[in-house]
Formats: sequence, C-alpha cells, structure tokens
Amino acid sequence: MEITSLTNTKIKQWAKYKEKKYRDADQKFLIEGEHLLQEAHTAGLIECILVEQGKNIPYEQYPVYYVTREILKKLTDSVSGSWVMAVCHFPEQQALTSDKIIILDGVQDPGNLGTILRTALSFSYQTILLSKNSVDVYNEKVIRSTQGALFHLNIIRTELLTAIEELKEKGYKIYGTSLHEAIPLSQVHPKKRHALIMGNEGKGVREEILCQTDQNVYIEMDTFESLNVAVAAAICMYTFKNK
Amino acid sequence: MEITSLTNTKIKQWAKYKEKKYRDADQKFLIEGEHLLQEAHTAGLIECILVEQGKNIPYEQYPVYYVTREILKKLTDSVSGSWVMAVCHFPEQQALTSDKIIILDGVQDPGNLGTILRTALSFSYQTILLSKNSVDVYNEKVIRSTQGALFHLNIIRTELLTAIEELKEKGYKIYGTSLHEAIPLSQVHPKKRHALIMGNEGKGVREEILCQTDQNVYIEMDTFESLNVAVAAAICMYTFKNK
Repeated sequence: MEITSLTNTKIKQWAKYKEKKYRDADQKFLIEGEHLLQEAHTAGLIECILVEQGKNIPYEQYPVYYVTREILKKLTDSVSGSWVMAVCHFPEQQALTSDKIIILDGVQDPGNLGTILRTALSFSYQTILLSKNSVDVYNEKVIRSTQGALFHLNIIRTELLTAIEELKEKGYKIYGTSLHEAIPLSQVHPKKRHALIMGNEGKGVREEILCQTDQNVYIEMDTFESLNVAVAAAICMYTFKNK
Repeated sequence: MEITSLTNTKIKQWAKYKEKKYRDADQKFLIEGEHLLQEAHTAGLIECILVEQGKNIPYEQYPVYYVTREILKKLTDSVSGSWVMAVCHFPEQQALTSDKIIILDGVQDPGNLGTILRTALSFSYQTILLSKNSVDVYNEKVIRSTQGALFHLNIIRTELLTAIEELKEKGYKIYGTSLHEAIPLSQVHPKKRHALIMGNEGKGVREEILCQTDQNVYIEMDTFESLNVAVAAAICMYTFKNK
C-alpha cells in the first residue's frame, strides 16, 4: 500500500510515537534502519513496516507501506534518517529471572541508557529495572544507541525501593555505587545472584536507596574526577564478572 | 565592550571556529559554560570572553565582550546554549612524558572521544595520541563531553605507525585491542610504562597497527556483542590499573 500524504491518519498517529505519552498509551514505538528491523523481527515485535518508495524489503509477513522520503523524515528526529522504519509493539514484561540485574536510578541521557543496555547484554545482565524518572527506553536515541540490545533484555520500569525489597527476599545481594561509605570495587566478591545500582548523571544514586543496599562500592580513580555513568556501569559489570 | 551585530567582523571570525579548518588555521577554538571557562582559565588558554548583555563574569584580566543572545546562538550548535563563551588558543604540545598513553585509531564519534578523554584523566593516561583521521578534539561536542578533562591532557594528533615505533624505542609496551589473535584482558600483566590502542567504532584498530603491537587483548563477554569504544576503553584502563 502507498501513502504519500503527510496528513494521512496513520502517519499522524505514528508521528505521535515520537512522544512518550503516546507510546505508553498505545504500547507502541518506532524503529528505523535495517539492523534494528532485523532485531525487532527476531523478537517478534513488528506491527508494520514503512519503506521509501522504490525500495524493497524482504518481510512479506508484515503489512508494508510504501511512503515518501518526507513521511520518513516526519517520523524521525535523526539527522541521517533511513529508508526503512517500523511500528513495533512493546514486548511483554517477564518476571525477574536473570541472576544478574542492573538497576538504574534516574539515568537521564538517552545515549547513556542505550550504552548501558548494550553493555548489560554483553555481560549477561538480562534484567534492567528503571526508576520511573529515568529516560524512556523507547526514546528514539536510546533505541539507536542500544544497537538492538534492547530487544534481548527484560526491561521493567518500576518503583525501585519496593523492587529492591522484593529482590532481597528472593536472595539477591544488592550493590550500590557511591563515593561515600563504600568499598573499592576491586575488593568486592560479588554473589552470583546480584543487582547493581547505577545513578543519575549529576546526583548519583539517591541516599534513600543507598541505605537499602547490602554493600556500596566505588571505582578507584587516580584523580578526583567523576566518570560517565555508562563508563562506570561497564567497569562494574566487567569487574563483577571476573571475580 | 559591546557587540550587538551578527555581522560584526570579530563575530564572523569566531563563528568560523565551528569548523576544524579555521580552528587549525588560527590555532583557536570556542568553549561555552562556566565550568569549562574555569578550566580553560586554570589552563591559561583564554583569549577573550563573550558574555550575554546584563550578566557579569569575574574574569577582569581578559577582554570581555558583552553580546546579544543571538550572537551566542550563532557561535554554538548546542541546543541549550549558555550565557557565557570564550575564545581559547590551542595549548602547547608537550613531549611524551606520562607513563600511560592512550592511542586512538580513527575514533569518529565526538561523544566517544570526549568520554574517553574524561576517563583517561581519571586513570592517569595523561597523553593521548590521535590518528589524523580521528574526530577533532576541539569539536564542540567533544569539548562538552570531556567535562574539562581536555585541558589537563597532552593530546597529540600524529601518524600512529611512526609514533608507535618511537614509543617502543622509549621502552613503552604497546597493547592493541582486537577480537582476533588476542589474549583475555583479565590475563594481561601490563608493564607500568605502556600504551593502549583503541580503534574506530565500526572497524576497530587497523590491521597494520595491530601487527606492530607487543600484545593484543580482548574483553571477555558472555554474548557475542560488540562494546561501545568508550566503554571498552574504560574497562581496559581500569583493569590495567588494578593489575
């Protein structure tokens, strides 16, 4: 089917998915590019595909709309753009099953969240808990920087204090990251079943959460600088893995 | 002194510093925001300061220009903008003195370079060698993501193969990062005086460089994913530090 009008009802509806409130309302989001399309297909999340007129895509099982370049531009904020996009539905949330969990308390930057998700998948942190004030995981920039890792993770937006209590009851050991009253990361001997908490870019992990953890750790640095949160998360995940 | 015209000669000249070729020609670059101003002041790099009309700044030792918001907007690509900017001159390049060196072979993303510089400072990699095709260190986005670390590092853009040869003669051990013919990072016992090479986002470190190293290492992951280069650099730097 062809769509050439920027004011087509479907296009207007999909364009709304650039905003979180409409994504949440319909439980749908947009992706772009062949790589993400492949990943979303594997994860079984595709509802329909939008392809630039004159191009082809080998996914005949989905409804395909042939659209103009202007329509594709309307649906994305990325500068480069792509000739293919898809409307996806949110994955079903699974129960907490992985041994290793990342908890993010107020991470705000889409690039940081995306990078953390990508790293988490590499180190088998397959469940991610996000505080309600964290950036939305279906934000266009987050999706782009996860490089598809998003589709292989169980991501849950939740009230962290309650979630941490539940994790403790299930036998998880909870590690916070903090510059105060913490032990050096290299001295930690992590329990296999654990959750690691990373905080907001400026403020770190909230005090009320840090005092609920089993242990807080800091990354040893030579100069008193702060590390980017995605960098700090990666250092912790790799170090925990090799202990 | 006040400047209100967007076509003022000085403003037109400074606006050119948004492009690398003009920065290189005049050996000057722009910064914005109070934090970076403070860092550039400490490093002795400020030539003059631009302040939005009606605001004040406590740096009387420098020429200060009071300018309109439109002028500040013209000089930056950042969305948020700032009420204060400065024109700085390039720092003098120092000889290689630090024990630990980061070599970047074709890193393209400004955010990645900025993050690597910030991490490098935290872990005492005070000298950075950049291949000629790497993103420019005085790129606005790089400066923003270094959070000022830029001003505390010795950054040298150079021909890497020649530089690596010189480093070896000076007794540095050279570590490359690669997924092939490499040993696990956790098994490396790094020499104190060393250089660590990170590569391009898509292609990694060039083959002709990898075959000049003393040892190549890889980061052990659970799933076959690739890590963001700034994340990989951080994991290597932290692990090398704690060996």
